[in-house]
Amino acid sequence: MTTLQSKKWVFAMAAAALVSASMGCKPTTPDAASVGDAAERVYVKPGTHDEFYNIVSGGFNGQMSVVGLPSGRVLRILPVFSAHPENGYGFSEESKPMLNTSHGYVPWDDLHHISLSQTKGEHDGRWAFGNANNTPRIARVDLKSFETVEILEIPNSSGNHSSPFITENTEYVVASTRFSVPLGGDAERDVPINTFKENFKGTVSFIKVDDEGHMSIAFQLVTPGMSFDLARAGKGKSHGWFFFSTYNSEQAYTLLEVNASQRDKDFIMAVNWKKAEEYIAAGKGKMTKAKYAHNVMDHNSHIATSTMMEEVLQLDPVELKDIIYFIPCPKSPHGTDVDPTGEYIVGSGKLAALIPVFSFTKLMKAIEAQDFEGEYAGIPVVRYESALHGEVKKPGLGPLHTEFDGRGNAYTSMFVSSEVVKWSIETLEVLDRAPTYYSVGHLSVPGGPTAKPHGKYLVAYNKITKDRYLPTGPELTQSAQLYDISGDKMQLLLDFPTIGEPHYAEAIPAALVEPNSIKFYKLEDNTHPYAAKGEGQARVERKGKEVHVYMTSIRSHFSPDNIEGVKLGDEVYFHVTNLEQDWDVPHGFAIKGANTAEILIMPGATQTLKWVPDRVGVVAFYCTDFCSALHQEMQGYIRVSPANSDVELKYSLGETGPQ
Amino acid sequence: MTTLQSKKWVFAMAAAALVSASMGCKPTTPDAASVGDAAERVYVKPGTHDEFYNIVSGGFNGQMSVVGLPSGRVLRILPVFSAHPENGYGFSEESKPMLNTSHGYVPWDDLHHISLSQTKGEHDGRWAFGNANNTPRIARVDLKSFETVEILEIPNSSGNHSSPFITENTEYVVASTRFSVPLGGDAERDVPINTFKENFKGTVSFIKVDDEGHMSIAFQLVTPGMSFDLARAGKGKSHGWFFFSTYNSEQAYTLLEVNASQRDKDFIMAVNWKKAEEYIAAGKGKMTKAKYAHNVMDHNSHIATSTMMEEVLQLDPVELKDIIYFIPCPKSPHGTDVDPTGEYIVGSGKLAALIPVFSFTKLMKAIEAQDFEGEYAGIPVVRYESALHGEVKKPGLGPLHTEFDGRGNAYTSMFVSSEVVKWSIETLEVLDRAPTYYSVGHLSVPGGPTAKPHGKYLVAYNKITKDRYLPTGPELTQSAQLYDISGDKMQLLLDFPTIGEPHYAEAIPAALVEPNSIKFYKLEDNTHPYAAKGEGQARVERKGKEVHVYMTSIRSHFSPDNIEGVKLGDEVYFHVTNLEQDWDVPHGFAIKGANTAEILIMPGATQTLKWVPDRVGVVAFYCTDFCSALHQEMQGYIRVSPANSDVELKYSLGETGPQ
Repeated sequence: MTTLQSKKWVFAMAAAALVSASMGCKPTTPDAASVGDAAERVYVKPGTHDEFYNIVSGGFNGQMSVVGLPSGRVLRILPVFSAHPENGYGFSEESKPMLNTSHGYVPWDDLHHISLSQTKGEHDGRWAFGNANNTPRIARVDLKSFETVEILEIPNSSGNHSSPFITENTEYVVASTRFSVPLGGDAERDVPINTFKENFKGTVSFIKVDDEGHMSIAFQLVTPGMSFDLARAGKGKSHGWFFFSTYNSEQAYTLLEVNASQRDKDFIMAVNWKKAEEYIAAGKGKMTKAKYAHNVMDHNSHIATSTMMEEVLQLDPVELKDIIYFIPCPKSPHGTDVDPTGEYIVGSGKLAALIPVFSFTKLMKAIEAQDFEGEYAGIPVVRYESALHGEVKKPGLGPLHTEFDGRGNAYTSMFVSSEVVKWSIETLEVLDRAPTYYSVGHLSVPGGPTAKPHGKYLVAYNKITKDRYLPTGPELTQSAQLYDISGDKMQLLLDFPTIGEPHYAEAIPAALVEPNSIKFYKLEDNTHPYAAKGEGQARVERKGKEVHVYMTSIRSHFSPDNIEGVKLGDEVYFHVTNLEQDWDVPHGFAIKGANTAEILIMPGATQTLKWVPDRVGVVAFYCTDFCSALHQEMQGYIRVSPANSDVELKYSLGETGPQ
Repeated sequence: MTTLQSKKWVFAMAAAALVSASMGCKPTTPDAASVGDAAERVYVKPGTHDEFYNIVSGGFNGQMSVVGLPSGRVLRILPVFSAHPENGYGFSEESKPMLNTSHGYVPWDDLHHISLSQTKGEHDGRWAFGNANNTPRIARVDLKSFETVEILEIPNSSGNHSSPFITENTEYVVASTRFSVPLGGDAERDVPINTFKENFKGTVSFIKVDDEGHMSIAFQLVTPGMSFDLARAGKGKSHGWFFFSTYNSEQAYTLLEVNASQRDKDFIMAVNWKKAEEYIAAGKGKMTKAKYAHNVMDHNSHIATSTMMEEVLQLDPVELKDIIYFIPCPKSPHGTDVDPTGEYIVGSGKLAALIPVFSFTKLMKAIEAQDFEGEYAGIPVVRYESALHGEVKKPGLGPLHTEFDGRGNAYTSMFVSSEVVKWSIETLEVLDRAPTYYSVGHLSVPGGPTAKPHGKYLVAYNKITKDRYLPTGPELTQSAQLYDISGDKMQLLLDFPTIGEPHYAEAIPAALVEPNSIKFYKLEDNTHPYAAKGEGQARVERKGKEVHVYMTSIRSHFSPDNIEGVKLGDEVYFHVTNLEQDWDVPHGFAIKGANTAEILIMPGATQTLKWVPDRVGVVAFYCTDFCSALHQEMQGYIRVSPANSDVELKYSLGETGPQ
């Protein structure tokens, strides 16, 4: 195929996507349940709770959001990779180190995929992992506190898209580079872009997760230069293996929409990580220099610490045989998904007109028999037909992702033809199709990626919103659609807008998370070195140019609430401890006109706002979170004098009345 | 009353609030509509639109959110005062100046109140104004583009809570200080906090809004030292007057929860702004030095410009008689609200056991007759009984805010007793009461603050969420409740979570906004100096250490997409023009591992990301907003060489294939 032909074909695909979207522009509700019926099925009446937590990636907002299903209501935005002025995440002295990287403080990222922790292949409700697609990082959120408690940077990666997929006992989460780049020292990295084939490499990192959830990079595979897109761990019989979709096996570096769409097949890469572990146990692999940050939030002080790591263990799978094999997969595969039994691996080639389903049993036989069609960059390529269970014919246009319901059915999103297609894993027969509005990306079935899906609902996360809601100018929300999949036919129940741009999401029954959710932090467990655990400990101390305010907050006053003797040139640290010991009584703290954000302090915790006064005068501070009938009165004043002033440091603990 | 007694009383109030909240802890639905009925009434079926836009303040998130009613769905978060990593607001070179103040760049604020523009006392759908409660600012959002297009800082203000309330033809929005502080030069401002009575002053600013929406400070009243809380303009017969609630007439400066709750009555301050205009026309008032920023976003280039202003016209209402009068109002009034006719002014004293309703006609008569009970700080105080229409007896505990339905009814939120109370403006009789979960703050009825409310719904914005949704650890969403108020009795229909902490909100019929909402920016109108309005204009230019990339984006490639010859020490400006001319096809742009955010470029617009490379190597860039089936291929590379490298600047426009 010539470049020109390829271009035409690609443009035809794009045109089809446009037609598909525009055809649906007039609001319609094909296949929807009756209005009254659908309304009742998504209505969660006041005072009752949703049935599932849906932990949804925020895409280019860098956060996760917690959505209730079936209501579609956004129950919270969890700050993960982006600074969050709302609660001071990334602004408080305690949380700033969480956003530290080898490039310094990075206030934003592009979070694409969620993995919830598993035990024996099932959701266990402990943690949610998310990937930073831009600056390569993985975060862990504690599902007891719904706090981001750990962020690990990934070295030798340029984009961390194929991440953070998880093994069935949370042994590992993986992180593979989206873009290959030259690795090594300055001289090896400063090479012409058109030397891609010689110099550009990919990496796949296996990150060990210990019993407490702490992450460390166990090893990194250095692969041929290509792009990794998505991945899934084996489970059950295929436990010990991991499957990654790859694209750009053409090794193009410019105009990829044409140049990386040349080959009829790219690959699914099968990784035998138990084999890699054997090599490591035998002393194989090379420890190489690599600079990357590892940031951990302490449970008791809520202080994040950032450690710069120095090296990583690399394995070369060309040299160390039997770690990786390629399976041909048409065409520019996006999703690779493993069914609940672990036997079937579904490859979704976004430019393919069919969906191949591979058999793990057949794959093992083919590898054992060395039934290869050749090599790619020194890696054996298994014969397509030998690993194939079968193909889903004419599923629709632009297959992207597949989820499972645990009843033998698979659901694949079709971006170009804007639909969800239900098919039988065993017979490969298409059973049902439902339109999406518009251009669906990922899908989520509660428990869908685990060994025991809960079925019942399917959420389609759509890429184009257009006319689905009241318009808000050129910039629109992204959107999701909820389907009931409990019957033979999918029924559209609800459109709901999302926060940021959702990519993948997982849904988990409320019963696995709700009982363990903590309501406040115990003041007695607070180990923050600047905590004032009672009003008797409130005070102000000067250490050279630093002024440390040990402040308490409780409905409805701060102690101290009048401070004098601060001077231009000082750095003032307000360490505010929230003395409340009850649920949903945060206090906020802000300085009038400071050029930073607020801090929001949960009951029992301490947070620190640093302020460098820039002018002389009396400045008010106040509680930013409406906390009581007398919240408006929860305020104080700090007086800033010239640098050479002789005003002495003094403060009032709020015991004096007006004079 | 001694301080000790007062303290006890305050604690009793707080205890009542706790009991009220905890009593409701078991999910119940008193007074709710039947489930099926309520479900159908809030269900907006897929493909159809909500009936009202609800423009909701985000409180401590600093933004506005657009919510559809009756569904309660969040249709968009509009960045206003806080940096928004999601779309690059506050990070792009174009938008950074929007967050400029006299204290430099301020990335956060605390947005409390929304005012929608009015003509003849009715919503006209042009603009939404919001106040920054922390760094004193007012913003204007254009309801055609839903973009923040102007931000004006308020000088001589310490907190801008009583803001941005609006007159019936959008002649003015007002901005009054929440905290009084010492004003003047360094020497006047550097005074002991306990000299409050002598030295601390309040200010009330009247901001002129011209026909294009542009804001300028017309004049500023310098008032006695007190706190301003909320305000409403007169309308109809009371047009030309403005009413402000005040608290802390005790002039306390420490432990305000006790010391500012001493007096039985504080004040509503009535301002005759037409009188102020007369004085100004007669050359009265004093131009005084004041440094404050005025930031305007250009419609065609989307470039914000920040201008530092130098002076403001101040009027002294003690010297210039008849501008202001005080009306006594029990006790620590929070809301002051004017009914649709303009005749009645409702004062909601948050510690009061009744609600006084004043008559504008009686107030005018009392002023004319000089029927005063004395003076406060040189300002006449009208006799309470002379201005009073009557009192609503036993309305509940902790009245905060009042809205109107245009059918003679008022609705007041009761924070302490956690309920909404409906009463007759004419008879002052309580007609109905409905519990809220929990501790309601503001209320919003569509058109409620205008001369022609639309009635139908009431939204209660609650301050405590607790157990209303699936728990998300110690930090919870804030929450709203939707009531049907079309009948005699209020019916609870829906609980829905909010974004940030909502304070005030306004709701407006979709028909007033939807038809004017623009879908994209016309490329031909783009006046950005670095725009590349076609791929033929894509290029890279070096100007000393600055490298300017004139880049285009269109599905699914960037031009240029390979760049070499950038060196350590350079500043690279990616000026990305989105060539698409269709709705809902933004492109995003990010550099791998850059320590900034992304930019999100709407069709037809140009946005600029500045990047200072910090290491040698080849760095990928990519589109962050899933735009087509080949979105994953929308990428490029930039090579960074050492400072002393002789690699020359060159770039590829994406026409070459792999070599």
